[in-house]
Amino acid sequence: MDRRSFLTKASVGGVAAAGSAVLAAPAIAQSMPTVTWRLTSSFPKSLDTIYGAAETMANAVSAMTDGKFKIQVFAAGEIVGGLQAMDAAAAGTVEAAHTATYYYWGKDPAWALGTCVPFGPNQRQMNAWYYYGGGRDLLNKFYAKKGLYGLQCGNTGVQMGGWYRKEIKTLDDIKGLKMRIGGTGGKVLSALGAVPQQIAGGDIYPALEKGTLDACEWVGPYDDEKLGFYKVAPYYYYPGWWEGGPALTTLVNKKKWEELPKQYQTVLMTANQAADLDMMAHYDAVNPAALKRLVANGAKLRPFPKEILSAAFDAAHKIYADISATNPSFKEIWDSQSVYIREGFLWDQVAEYTYDTFMMIQQQAGKL
Amino acid sequence: MDRRSFLTKASVGGVAAAGSAVLAAPAIAQSMPTVTWRLTSSFPKSLDTIYGAAETMANAVSAMTDGKFKIQVFAAGEIVGGLQAMDAAAAGTVEAAHTATYYYWGKDPAWALGTCVPFGPNQRQMNAWYYYGGGRDLLNKFYAKKGLYGLQCGNTGVQMGGWYRKEIKTLDDIKGLKMRIGGTGGKVLSALGAVPQQIAGGDIYPALEKGTLDACEWVGPYDDEKLGFYKVAPYYYYPGWWEGGPALTTLVNKKKWEELPKQYQTVLMTANQAADLDMMAHYDAVNPAALKRLVANGAKLRPFPKEILSAAFDAAHKIYADISATNPSFKEIWDSQSVYIREGFLWDQVAEYTYDTFMMIQQQAGKL
Repeated sequence: MDRRSFLTKASVGGVAAAGSAVLAAPAIAQSMPTVTWRLTSSFPKSLDTIYGAAETMANAVSAMTDGKFKIQVFAAGEIVGGLQAMDAAAAGTVEAAHTATYYYWGKDPAWALGTCVPFGPNQRQMNAWYYYGGGRDLLNKFYAKKGLYGLQCGNTGVQMGGWYRKEIKTLDDIKGLKMRIGGTGGKVLSALGAVPQQIAGGDIYPALEKGTLDACEWVGPYDDEKLGFYKVAPYYYYPGWWEGGPALTTLVNKKKWEELPKQYQTVLMTANQAADLDMMAHYDAVNPAALKRLVANGAKLRPFPKEILSAAFDAAHKIYADISATNPSFKEIWDSQSVYIREGFLWDQVAEYTYDTFMMIQQQAGKL
Repeated sequence: MDRRSFLTKASVGGVAAAGSAVLAAPAIAQSMPTVTWRLTSSFPKSLDTIYGAAETMANAVSAMTDGKFKIQVFAAGEIVGGLQAMDAAAAGTVEAAHTATYYYWGKDPAWALGTCVPFGPNQRQMNAWYYYGGGRDLLNKFYAKKGLYGLQCGNTGVQMGGWYRKEIKTLDDIKGLKMRIGGTGGKVLSALGAVPQQIAGGDIYPALEKGTLDACEWVGPYDDEKLGFYKVAPYYYYPGWWEGGPALTTLVNKKKWEELPKQYQTVLMTANQAADLDMMAHYDAVNPAALKRLVANGAKLRPFPKEILSAAFDAAHKIYADISATNPSFKEIWDSQSVYIREGFLWDQVAEYTYDTFMMIQQQAGKL
């Protein structure tokens, strides 16, 4: 919440409200113009949780402005491809994109930090940093270079570590592993000897079946189940250490953002923030049952060995140090985010973790 | 998000937007009437996190309606006392209250379930249940009996287990313990032999100092620090098992809710949902530094012994079974919430918990 803008607006609004209905009417018509935007999602409609967050947000915006501010949501591929969403919003082809900013890390690694990097903040730490730790401002300083304004809109929570045809017991099992994984996660796995592959969602299953691919990562139980990977790569590893609290973002063309009346800016900001919470609640509601179905259907749950997590952690931090040495944007954002990771995992181990641990013991004992 | 109402509203809005500015103006004036509400908070302004959530929400409502829907927020005691907030909204003395519904468990234990009961859902499980598990509807069915409509607005996360003059090592140390604690937490501790006390916030410190009180619970590091308990009762226990994910609620007089235009209802709903996320982010941002300051100032962190947690868990579940036997509202809500606790703690121990655990090990090793 930007409390300052709310407070200013509240005072101004009081004056307008004092006018008579007749006098106020033209002012209202001016202050609530008809605005229609197009938003391109980086996601297909089949990912109803992630794609759905943009629709939830857009529906709230429309309802809160009595239909005067409408955002039409288009699935990936309807206007531009999923990975062209950011560029389309920057160019003004569309007014907005709902995307994972880490898709653009190849242009600049700092893009990854708006979503997540391996061993980054969990969902609550991401929110603490974003909403109260200066994260929103730092990210927007970076997005502004592209003519964009970002609003966080959704989180998946810690993802799963993907599907493997064979068990992964030691670091040697990573060497030469052909895995469908992108972004900084792929870069870290590459440092451990894996061979990251870029394959479109629909092509993963046949590649795993044929064995031209050894492993893939997707999201978590609810989304993974739909693609049926458990049938051809049954080892289901956790945690997805490259996605500890990945946030989605609505990237708005900055000129279009600035043209909005203050009222609509607050409507858009609040709708995104509400959808941010909504998407996490949605995942938390649907993932447990999906996990149980997957296991019933033959998925074999496996934790990553500590040896692999530790090697990946060290490799990741070496990569961040290397990038930080030459990329001031990455360094500024990562240094700020790191404080919330470090302090967050200190505090979390006191109340939150001990509560969850005790409750998980009760769960395992069948007492819940 | 109530998608259905959003979708309906979106379609209706499209028609209105098609009208000319002149024709549309009177309709706009009608659909956005000037509405001024009073909201009484159950909290003092000094609890800036909890009290602040109502202000954040009210400011968003005003900004999103260009000042036409104003909610004036009053601290506890300005209109009615903190524990009279619900009754004041039900009676129409005020239009709304921002409160913890468990304050009213004495009238009916089912009230507690809108906030939390001991060993209830954590914050994310509460949201999953509330927004996607039918929780909102079940709670509102119960609130409707009092002529109220509730909107979840904030969460503190797992709280701390309070301040103790002496160490608590065994169940015997609980017997006769004069502790300032209310609600079902007090009822459970009472079953273990403690003597719960009801004391206003300002009177706790001198009572602890004199020794007429042995222990107290408040919230967590950030709020607790202000009251200085570490100086007179230095043992700071965790976790606060009676508050695993306590939610705050905006209780609205149901008639007033129903009188609102649909547009304002969505504005109010979305502003509450955004503030729900905002308060948790606020706590997560400020608690870590407060915890470090408390420890530096002499607070002695202690985990509750397992023996005590287990005895409290069993006593709590016996109480829920007893209440459920005679109270259909409690039974219906608790049975529904229990599913999200049970399934949530199953899923949490896979991805989320193993990620957090690994990261906490890195934190302890000074690697974050």
